[in-house]
Amino acid sequence: MYEGPVQTLIDELGRLPGIGPKSAQRLAFHLLGTDRADAERLAQAITAAARDVHFCQRCFNVAEAEECRICRDPKRDQSVLCVVAEPKDVQAIEKTGEFRGRYHVLGGMIVPIDGITPDKLHIAELLRRMGIEDISEVVLALNPTVDGETTASYLTKQLKALEVSITRIASGLPVGGDLEYADQVTLGRAFAGRTAM
Amino acid sequence: MYEGPVQTLIDELGRLPGIGPKSAQRLAFHLLGTDRADAERLAQAITAAARDVHFCQRCFNVAEAEECRICRDPKRDQSVLCVVAEPKDVQAIEKTGEFRGRYHVLGGMIVPIDGITPDKLHIAELLRRMGIEDISEVVLALNPTVDGETTASYLTKQLKALEVSITRIASGLPVGGDLEYADQVTLGRAFAGRTAM
Repeated sequence: MYEGPVQTLIDELGRLPGIGPKSAQRLAFHLLGTDRADAERLAQAITAAARDVHFCQRCFNVAEAEECRICRDPKRDQSVLCVVAEPKDVQAIEKTGEFRGRYHVLGGMIVPIDGITPDKLHIAELLRRMGIEDISEVVLALNPTVDGETTASYLTKQLKALEVSITRIASGLPVGGDLEYADQVTLGRAFAGRTAM
Repeated sequence: MYEGPVQTLIDELGRLPGIGPKSAQRLAFHLLGTDRADAERLAQAITAAARDVHFCQRCFNVAEAEECRICRDPKRDQSVLCVVAEPKDVQAIEKTGEFRGRYHVLGGMIVPIDGITPDKLHIAELLRRMGIEDISEVVLALNPTVDGETTASYLTKQLKALEVSITRIASGLPVGGDLEYADQVTLGRAFAGRTAM
């Protein structure tokens, strides 16, 4: 194949998810072709992230310190906890500006067929937090997919014994969507979840 | 957005061609989530490639030394020169095992609308090689696209004055292809380029 370092770079890029051998080759030549300072900056960004980024000890969001920015923020409402699957979900919710509570990141969703059983996720830590922190509401913000439903119903069972209100984010027509083109399940959910005007 | 190094990593990954913000985020979390030794290896591969990979002084293929492996190989036929656009084309041709001559990598194709004029490519170096080296045949192995045709006809004009035979790789039906589904231009080319049985 290619001489030494080029092939190594292509192999390493090809290990990334969704990057096939052709894409890896294209990326490698981009990194070699354009300004090499770009390549050096990318290498440094990877090294710095792998070295300095940790997961928040409380909520498992990405963090530079022991706890993430949100957990450290005293202005956040400590009584409402939003449970999400991944750190990227935290970012998506933060962008809306609608939620002022705190988060708990599970680190994935329950998918038994892929070996992701509840003990692989940060569910034990969630239950521990419920015992220590003064939480009155848990909002489940999981994807409205089979995996999301499985995870949500498992969590509901686990949390039911506690004196806490469990809610989930609404599922229905997306804003700008069209009744005619909505799938049956989504439209059914939109009806079931109808609210007073 | 994300805290410090994560956002930097996402931004740097997002500068790669074909990697949008969502893919960059997915790749960043992959690098942070799985074994961090993987991330470190990728960073090292990028640094090593940017530092150690050069372009062959003779043919502009990727090389670790001043000249690439192919130019250094005394067993290659010095009288046949294959002109390609990119180093990856060299690899594609090498894989076939059909060509035992040497290469000249242009570094792209002539696309005036994108500002890629002949002086941006290694065409002057090609003409210099023609004067110094004992080359009897130049094989143009450029993509059968508009840009490839433009480049091929420009090169043909430049090389015509020299006593050298200029050939181009055949265009026609791909092996395993089907007459019925071939486009008209390809089928036309296949007829024009028919050979004796």
